[in-house]
Amino acid sequence: CARAHHSVGVVGAPFWKGQPKDGVEKGPDFIRGAGLVEKLRKQGCTVKDYGNVTFQDVSNDSPVGKVQRPQTVGLANQRLADVVKAIKNDGYICVMLGGDHSLAIGSIVGHAAIKKDLSVVWVDAHADINTPLTTPTGNIHGQPMSFLIKELHCKMPVVPGLSWIKPCISANDLVYIGLRDVDPGEHYILKSLGIKAFSITEVDRLGIAKVMEQTCDHVFSRGKKPIHLSYDIDAIDPMVSPATGTPVVGGLTYREGIYITEVICQTDLLSALDMVEVNPKQAKTDDEIKSTVNAAVDVVLGCFGRVREGSHPPDYWMPHL
Amino acid sequence: CARAHHSVGVVGAPFWKGQPKDGVEKGPDFIRGAGLVEKLRKQGCTVKDYGNVTFQDVSNDSPVGKVQRPQTVGLANQRLADVVKAIKNDGYICVMLGGDHSLAIGSIVGHAAIKKDLSVVWVDAHADINTPLTTPTGNIHGQPMSFLIKELHCKMPVVPGLSWIKPCISANDLVYIGLRDVDPGEHYILKSLGIKAFSITEVDRLGIAKVMEQTCDHVFSRGKKPIHLSYDIDAIDPMVSPATGTPVVGGLTYREGIYITEVICQTDLLSALDMVEVNPKQAKTDDEIKSTVNAAVDVVLGCFGRVREGSHPPDYWMPHL
Amino acid sequence: CARAHHSVGVVGAPFWKGQPKDGVEKGPDFIRGAGLVEKLRKQGCTVKDYGNVTFQDVSNDSPVGKVQRPQTVGLANQRLADVVKAIKNDGYICVMLGGDHSLAIGSIVGHAAIKKDLSVVWVDAHADINTPLTTPTGNIHGQPMSFLIKELHCKMPVVPGLSWIKPCISANDLVYIGLRDVDPGEHYILKSLGIKAFSITEVDRLGIAKVMEQTCDHVFSRGKKPIHLSYDIDAIDPMVSPATGTPVVGGLTYREGIYITEVICQTDLLSALDMVEVNPKQAKTDDEIKSTVNAAVDVVLGCFGRVREGSHPPDYWMPHL
Ligand SMILES: [Mn+2]
Ligand SMILES: [Mn+2]
Ligand SMILES: [Mn+2]
Ligand SMILES: [Mn+2]
Ligand SMILES: [Mn+2]
Ligand SMILES: [Mn+2]
Repeated sequence: CARAHHSVGVVGAPFWKGQPKDGVEKGPDFIRGAGLVEKLRKQGCTVKDYGNVTFQDVSNDSPVGKVQRPQTVGLANQRLADVVKAIKNDGYICVMLGGDHSLAIGSIVGHAAIKKDLSVVWVDAHADINTPLTTPTGNIHGQPMSFLIKELHCKMPVVPGLSWIKPCISANDLVYIGLRDVDPGEHYILKSLGIKAFSITEVDRLGIAKVMEQTCDHVFSRGKKPIHLSYDIDAIDPMVSPATGTPVVGGLTYREGIYITEVICQTDLLSALDMVEVNPKQAKTDDEIKSTVNAAVDVVLGCFGRVREGSHPPDYWMPHL
Repeated sequence: CARAHHSVGVVGAPFWKGQPKDGVEKGPDFIRGAGLVEKLRKQGCTVKDYGNVTFQDVSNDSPVGKVQRPQTVGLANQRLADVVKAIKNDGYICVMLGGDHSLAIGSIVGHAAIKKDLSVVWVDAHADINTPLTTPTGNIHGQPMSFLIKELHCKMPVVPGLSWIKPCISANDLVYIGLRDVDPGEHYILKSLGIKAFSITEVDRLGIAKVMEQTCDHVFSRGKKPIHLSYDIDAIDPMVSPATGTPVVGGLTYREGIYITEVICQTDLLSALDMVEVNPKQAKTDDEIKSTVNAAVDVVLGCFGRVREGSHPPDYWMPHL
Repeated sequence: CARAHHSVGVVGAPFWKGQPKDGVEKGPDFIRGAGLVEKLRKQGCTVKDYGNVTFQDVSNDSPVGKVQRPQTVGLANQRLADVVKAIKNDGYICVMLGGDHSLAIGSIVGHAAIKKDLSVVWVDAHADINTPLTTPTGNIHGQPMSFLIKELHCKMPVVPGLSWIKPCISANDLVYIGLRDVDPGEHYILKSLGIKAFSITEVDRLGIAKVMEQTCDHVFSRGKKPIHLSYDIDAIDPMVSPATGTPVVGGLTYREGIYITEVICQTDLLSALDMVEVNPKQAKTDDEIKSTVNAAVDVVLGCFGRVREGSHPPDYWMPHL
C-alpha cells in the first residue's frame, strides 16, 4: 500500500466526557499541530480536513446506575456519527482524532451506517467492553464495545441518552491487540463470546508479526470486509506515549505499534481509523507530549502508506547525468 | 494457573551484608508498601505475612580469604533457612523478599530441607556462582549458587560461618535466564558442569517464549519437581528497574520479565520464590524507586495467577437484566 | 570468536564536515575516554592505537551543486584512506572511530585497496546512498555509499574534490540493517540495484536472529570475503543513544545492536569497522552522553569477542583446594 493513493477525511472530536480527566479534548489540535495533514499529503494522500466537531453539554446529566454523563456522551456520539457518515459518503477513509475512546461509539455507528459489514481491530491496553452493569468506574470510554456488539445486546440495560445505539458489530468481527488491563467482567465477555484477543502475553509469545498474520486471517476468514481500526494511544508503552489518561506499563513498543499499521495498510481494506486518548495535560514534560503526539501521528501515517523501508513514487525519475 | 488458588507465605529479609551497598535491606518494606499482600489477596491468594526476619551482626567478622563478612552472612542465612522451613511446613508457597541475593542460600537450604528434590530457576543478570576462590569481589551475593551445587562441593574451601551449608541442588536442576555479566570463573563452572543457561544472547536469538519452553523442558526432563524461582530484579533492564546495586545494560524487558512468571505459574510447580536486590537507595529519583518496586511487585503477582489477558473467578456471575 | 585473539588497530577520525553539526569530531576521544582500548586488551585483543588523523580545511570550498564542502570532505577521506591502508598493511583489523559517516568513503576505499573483494554490512537508520544529484540536503554523510557502489558510477557527476574516489563495492556485496529513514531517491536505488536491506520493518517481522542469519547467507553467498562493518550509532534507538546528529525514533534496541556484533564476530571475517556519528554535543545531559558512548564502546567490544554469556581463556585454571 506504500505510495498507493489514499483519500483521507480527517475530523477532530475534542471531547473528554467519556472519562474524568480533561485535557484529552486537546488531542485533535495537538495531533494536527504536529503536521499530520501536511505529512499525509507529502506521502501522496488526498486529504480533506473536516475540522472539529462541536459538542454540546446536556444539563442535569446525572449518572444512570454507575454510568457517568450518559446524555452528554450519547449526544456527542450522535453528532460524531453523522459527521462520519458524511465523510464516508464523500468517499473518504475517515480519520477520527479523539478525544476519549467513548467516541468509538459514534465513529463505528456512523461508519457501519454506510459500510454495512465491518471488521473492527481494536488496539488498546484495555478492552473497553464493560457493560453499564459490569463497569467498575462508570466511565463510558471503558464501555463502547459493549454497546456495539450484537451478541451483548440482551445483556445491556437501556441507558437514557444511549438507547439510540444499535449494535452493528458481530463478536466474530472484532480483534483486540495489546490488552493488558482487562476487568473480570470484560474477560468473562471475551471468553463467553469467543472474541479474538491478542493480549500482550500473546504478543510476547508469538511476536507481533505472527499476531498480525493471525489478525488478518481472522479478519479475512469471513470475507474481505472494510476494516475499522480503533487505536488507543495507551496501547503503546507509557515510556513512549505517557500523555494519556490510563497508562499501563508493559505496552507495545513504538515499533510494534507502527508495524500493526503497516500490515493494516497492506490489506487495502482500511475504511476508518480512530486515534484516541492523547491527553497532553497528563504529561509531566513537553518531551512527553511530543513523544506521545508524534507516536499518534506516526500511527496515522503508517495507516496511509508510510513504510519504514522508504518508498518512491511510481513515476520517480532519478536525476542523473 | 490464573485464578487458581495459591497459598502464599510472605517473609521479609532486610539484609544487605552479602554486598557492600546498604539500602537493599529496605526492599521488603518498599515492596509491601506498594501493596503486595493486598494485591495478592485481590487476585484470589490466601496470604500469610510472616513479617521480617531479624538478623544479628557477628562481631570481629573479618574476611576469610576474599570472602566478606562470612559469619554475618552465614548466621543470617541460618535464621532465614529456619523461617523458610517453617513456612513450607505450614503448607505455603514461600515468598522471600530480599535483601541481597546471598539470601538465596538460606531460602534454598530451607526449602530443600522440606522439599527434597528441587529445580532452581535463577533469573538474573549475574550467575552468582563464584566460589570463595574465584570471586573477584568477595561479596557473597555473587557466590550463593557455589555453596548449593552438589558438583561444586569438592572445589569449595571451608569458610567459617558458612560451613553448615550442605549443597542440595544438582547442576542439572539449575536453569539460568537473563545472564549478561558473567565472570570467567563462573563461565568455566557453567560450561564444565553443563549448566543450562539462557544468557541475553539466547533470549535475543530464541525469543522469550522459546526460552521458557526450553526452560520447562529442561526442568521437567527429570520429573515434575517443585520449583524454586530465585528472581534478581537486576535481570530486568535498568531503564525499568534502576534501583538495584549492580545494574547491567541490555536486560530483560518488563514484558519478558513478566512473561517468565506467567509461564512458571502455569507449571503449577512453584514452591518458593525469592525477589531480591531491590535497593531504593540506588535510585536517583522517586520515579526510579516506583518503577523498580512496581516491577518487583508485578513479578510476584505474575507468579501467583495474574495474567495480562485478564481473568475472572470460576463462579463469576455476569450482572445482566 | 569469543576469546579468539584479535589484532585491532584503532584510529580516530575527528571530522564533522560531512554534515552541519559540530561536536561529532569529539567522538573518538569520548569513545577512547570510556576505556575502549583497555577493555579490548582486557578481553584478549592486541591493540595498537594509531591516534587521531589530522585533517585540513580547504579554503574556498563552495558547494558544487547541492554538495557541501566537497573539497574538505574529499581531502579528509584521502588522508583517512591512507591511514586505513597502513593499518591493514600492518595486519590489524582496522577500527575507525568517527566523526561523521562521510568518513566511510576513506575507510572503505583504504580497506578495499588492501583487501580487493569486500562485503559491506551497513548498520544505520539511514541508507547514506544519495547521489550528489538526489541528495535533499547536500551533506556528504548522506551520500558515501553512492560514491562506492560500482553499479552507480554511471549516475554520478564529477564533483571536484571527490573525483579521486574509485567505486570498489558491488551492489550485491552490501547489506543494510536498521533502515527507517530512507529518501525516495535512495529507495529507488536500493530497489533498482536489488540491494539487500533489512529495514526496521524486517527486523520487526523476522526478528534480529533471522535477520543476521539472512545477512550471513547473503554475505557468504559469493564466497567468504572480508567484511567491512560500517556502524552508525543512530541505528540504535535514541532512547539508548540520543547523542547523535540525526536521531530517528523506533531504532534497534541495545540488545539487537549488540547481537549484530556477536554474529559478525562469529563469522571471523571482520576486517574493518567504522563506529561513527557519536556526537556528545547533541546530548541534553551527561547521562545521554554516557549512554551513547557506552553503546558505541559495547558495539566495538562485541565485534572483538565479548559475548554476553561470558567467556574464559582456553587455559583458564580454576582455583580450588
Ligand atoms: Mn480505549
Ligand atoms: Mn486504553
Ligand atoms: Mn543475583
Ligand atoms: Mn544480579
Ligand atoms: Mn550513517
Ligand atoms: Mn544515520
